[in-house]
Amino acid sequence: MQYNAVPLQKLIEQFERMPGIGRKTAQRIAFYILGLPEKESDEIANAITDACRKIHKCSVCSNLTEDEVCPICRNLKRDHSVICVVEDTQSLMAIEKTKEYSGTYHVLHGAISPLDGIGPEQLTIKELLARLSDDELKEIIIATDSDIEGEATAMYLSKLIKPFNLNISRIAFGLPVGTDIQYADEVTLSRAIEGRRTM
Amino acid sequence: MQYNAVPLQKLIEQFERMPGIGRKTAQRIAFYILGLPEKESDEIANAITDACRKIHKCSVCSNLTEDEVCPICRNLKRDHSVICVVEDTQSLMAIEKTKEYSGTYHVLHGAISPLDGIGPEQLTIKELLARLSDDELKEIIIATDSDIEGEATAMYLSKLIKPFNLNISRIAFGLPVGTDIQYADEVTLSRAIEGRRTM
Repeated sequence: MQYNAVPLQKLIEQFERMPGIGRKTAQRIAFYILGLPEKESDEIANAITDACRKIHKCSVCSNLTEDEVCPICRNLKRDHSVICVVEDTQSLMAIEKTKEYSGTYHVLHGAISPLDGIGPEQLTIKELLARLSDDELKEIIIATDSDIEGEATAMYLSKLIKPFNLNISRIAFGLPVGTDIQYADEVTLSRAIEGRRTM
Repeated sequence: MQYNAVPLQKLIEQFERMPGIGRKTAQRIAFYILGLPEKESDEIANAITDACRKIHKCSVCSNLTEDEVCPICRNLKRDHSVICVVEDTQSLMAIEKTKEYSGTYHVLHGAISPLDGIGPEQLTIKELLARLSDDELKEIIIATDSDIEGEATAMYLSKLIKPFNLNISRIAFGLPVGTDIQYADEVTLSRAIEGRRTM
């Protein structure tokens, strides 16, 4: 690619590596950035270094935060008797967006996946266990994904938490709202029947 | 979005502004960057500032380059009797990729578009005219886009270049290779008939 300036080529390559970005989009982004005033392109670079320097895990729930303890754990208006265990901050954000949940969280930063070499010790399970002896605590909601790794993690956690004498629940799996039963896949449908509730 | 760390939110917003990137992709990229080792995230930030500081227009053809004169203009093996006029560096890259063209380029950095307030003086037309008195020069290929702005720019340039007694050509428009005639749009098809060549 002799016809491209090296710094431009490097910039395109950096974007190409990112998830969900192909060669064409990487090029378009690179030229977009080159076309920005220097102040604005600096802002992008600063946002990257800033985020990576300042953000770390909350000392309580392992959510990503810039403070020692994240705003959710600090918030006394939230229900500290419930912990919702999620795989990642993205899941936490999705649940927060529903505005239906007012308890606290615990972010595992992954799911158990022996094939990828991720065992319980790579996750923040030790940190979760440390929170379980809190007298205030009443319920653990396990909201790991519904894939194999998420299910395995849920099973593992429920066994681990059982001795603590807490309510343990798993989020419901079934038909997504608005879908036709005829188009649902078999596994989802059988989970929906299995998890049926009296009306 | 109280549940998100401010630096993380800022990072997501920076990516959301970029062309072709929606909220979900911006989030995914932000978390991808947060997950990188600090060395690699710094590399991304440096690639951005580097590209914006080091890259400027070639003093001959206005192509983006980190040198005073770009590698294409410096290359004595290329045919300096032809200049291919393109709207932007992306077009240049696309033509270079065909490996069919060995002449030089001139990058206009836009096309005439009165509605967007872009007149000839905003483009590098003055720089192009300065190159036309070179004795070595024989042909100008106008390879602006086939949209209204590109066509208007091509017309404008051809009138401007006529007095210099050079061959002026426009790249061919017609059916893209591999398409069915029945599916071609009318304008493309009429351009294809208009531009027919004897076999």
